[in-house]
Amino acid sequence: MPVIKINELPLIKGADNIGYPAPHAKGCDLYEAASLGEAAGLTQFGVSIEKLLPGGMSSQRHWHENEDEFLYMLTGEVVLVEDDGEHTLTEGMAAGWKANQPNGHHLINRSDQPAFYLIIGTRAENDTCHYPDIDLHYSRKNGERQFTHKDGTPYEEEQNQ
Amino acid sequence: MPVIKINELPLIKGADNIGYPAPHAKGCDLYEAASLGEAAGLTQFGVSIEKLLPGGMSSQRHWHENEDEFLYMLTGEVVLVEDDGEHTLTEGMAAGWKANQPNGHHLINRSDQPAFYLIIGTRAENDTCHYPDIDLHYSRKNGERQFTHKDGTPYEEEQNQ
Repeated sequence: MPVIKINELPLIKGADNIGYPAPHAKGCDLYEAASLGEAAGLTQFGVSIEKLLPGGMSSQRHWHENEDEFLYMLTGEVVLVEDDGEHTLTEGMAAGWKANQPNGHHLINRSDQPAFYLIIGTRAENDTCHYPDIDLHYSRKNGERQFTHKDGTPYEEEQNQ
Repeated sequence: MPVIKINELPLIKGADNIGYPAPHAKGCDLYEAASLGEAAGLTQFGVSIEKLLPGGMSSQRHWHENEDEFLYMLTGEVVLVEDDGEHTLTEGMAAGWKANQPNGHHLINRSDQPAFYLIIGTRAENDTCHYPDIDLHYSRKNGERQFTHKDGTPYEEEQNQ
């Protein structure tokens, strides 16, 4: 089993990693991610290390129907935004979101330094993701990922450019 | 969602956490663990932070039939022992074990400082665990955990004292 060294993994730009249709990727271009779980060949859950730059956000505020999710802060400081407000997270702090709990969450870096954290999430076969703040809906069914408007209509191709 | 602060969680002694029948818990009394995943109410995977003291080992060398497992090193140094030999792990290094890959693994602390790491593992409904070095077999079926000898005979009650 090869040992994984995080500084040797390729980093994926946040906006590419998330795949939101425009204009929702805006703000997610200030983070990078590397998949440790895939590097280890795992399939039941994902483990990523993410580097969130000052002014960036980790994702749009969201919650999953079928997947538990967990965050562990490595270095730096982020603000976790949830339904009940904001929480500042620093090294050695953690938070988790049980599947199907409708509590939209994301991270913002309001500091002047990069923040590093681990994100762990189940890899469910099928999932639906809700975004309470924006007109976006996500589903993954039999491996097929789809972002649509909340009413189910697709995003126009040109918006992805 | 309450934020979890790792230094506020109760630590469980390693030997109690693992639950091996005697004499196999020997050497596992030099680590402590706290379950971050349970503190967050998660059920699909477990996330624990473990503190391994000098001279201690994290578990007996083992592999799971049904559960992916992942390790992320936070601070300190451990030796990962696998079928192919030994690997030294320090901060920012990681390793993972896909379910049903027969590669027994555990960690030993041969340094003179405590080592801290995160362990993540799927919580499968049923699982079987293999221990290549010792006469031990583990199964969990419909929530019932059982350690036996490799031939299926139970460990004597008095050996648990």
